[in-house]
Amino acid sequence: MTAKRIAIIQGHPDPDEQRFCRALANAYADGARSKGHQIKTIDIARIEFPILRTQHEFEQGAISDSIQQAQDIIQWAEHLVIIYPLWLGSMPAYLKAFLEQVFRPGFAAVKSAEGKPWKKCLSGRSARIVVTMGMPAFVYRFIYLAHSLKSLERNILGFCGIGPAKDTLIGMVEAIGHDKRRKWLRRLEKLGQEGR
Amino acid sequence: MTAKRIAIIQGHPDPDEQRFCRALANAYADGARSKGHQIKTIDIARIEFPILRTQHEFEQGAISDSIQQAQDIIQWAEHLVIIYPLWLGSMPAYLKAFLEQVFRPGFAAVKSAEGKPWKKCLSGRSARIVVTMGMPAFVYRFIYLAHSLKSLERNILGFCGIGPAKDTLIGMVEAIGHDKRRKWLRRLEKLGQEGR
Repeated sequence: MTAKRIAIIQGHPDPDEQRFCRALANAYADGARSKGHQIKTIDIARIEFPILRTQHEFEQGAISDSIQQAQDIIQWAEHLVIIYPLWLGSMPAYLKAFLEQVFRPGFAAVKSAEGKPWKKCLSGRSARIVVTMGMPAFVYRFIYLAHSLKSLERNILGFCGIGPAKDTLIGMVEAIGHDKRRKWLRRLEKLGQEGR
Repeated sequence: MTAKRIAIIQGHPDPDEQRFCRALANAYADGARSKGHQIKTIDIARIEFPILRTQHEFEQGAISDSIQQAQDIIQWAEHLVIIYPLWLGSMPAYLKAFLEQVFRPGFAAVKSAEGKPWKKCLSGRSARIVVTMGMPAFVYRFIYLAHSLKSLERNILGFCGIGPAKDTLIGMVEAIGHDKRRKWLRRLEKLGQEGR
């Protein structure tokens, strides 16, 4: 197996080390490093960035240092792992805000000519999306979750050429208990070892 | 026709008066007032609120005055009109951030007992979702858009009992030209007159 360059985007807005999303990211990273893969992590709860307010900012606004660093890591990577909890049926606003800053025209895709499809700038990178659902209120059936997930897969990652995207869906995070959580951590460690 | 109490949630993060989303909201409000409906508007670009960072804040965090006022308006209303542009295939992060603040446990839904479904707190209210797609990059086919829309309809509005939700989808906003824009404004005015 060839060693891969892997970027983990830790998408939980809470910097608390106790969050299960963080344990999952660590398990993946440990597994990956044990097999020689290179890991870089973007922890959105630990960087500062403005919330996008206008289309003009999106198209032409300055890019903050933190976002520039995130773009560099994504460009470096061959595989992206995006981890987040489901809040009100979709990714947390804070993660969407990060993606709106990062996936700017010119970085994600470029307009080739009026009326033509955009040229995808990040082709050749695969992805894994890991979604946890903690509160009973957020435990939706797959059909509901699929909206959030497919929007990310197709409209953000697909738009800039990142694919294929696979997913790992972890329901009832708070209720499943210690043993099942450990099984999920081992599963993530194994995915990390395999670099996928 | 009975006069209705209607809340318009202006979901464009940009306070610029020139935004088409604002013209659409104004057209709807003008139409509604002309037929005796009462209108209150929540303009998310003009109020301040924190971005939700933790599950604890969501469940037990203090509610800011601006969010309290928004909740009061939603509670007062019989019909909600939510207007936003599509950014990277879903609602802007800033609007999602607003909804995460507003639709808190206790206001949106309450947990009746462990393992039981949540009790919906906002039943009896209908909704219309108006989505504009401005940039060519954001002009996705209906199948893509549907993810964002259905997530809002089912996972946020449906979760707290708001429904039915109808939608008005306005594609190619920048390219359609003045005449078609005027047609859309008249369409919104008519929806306002009819209070739907």
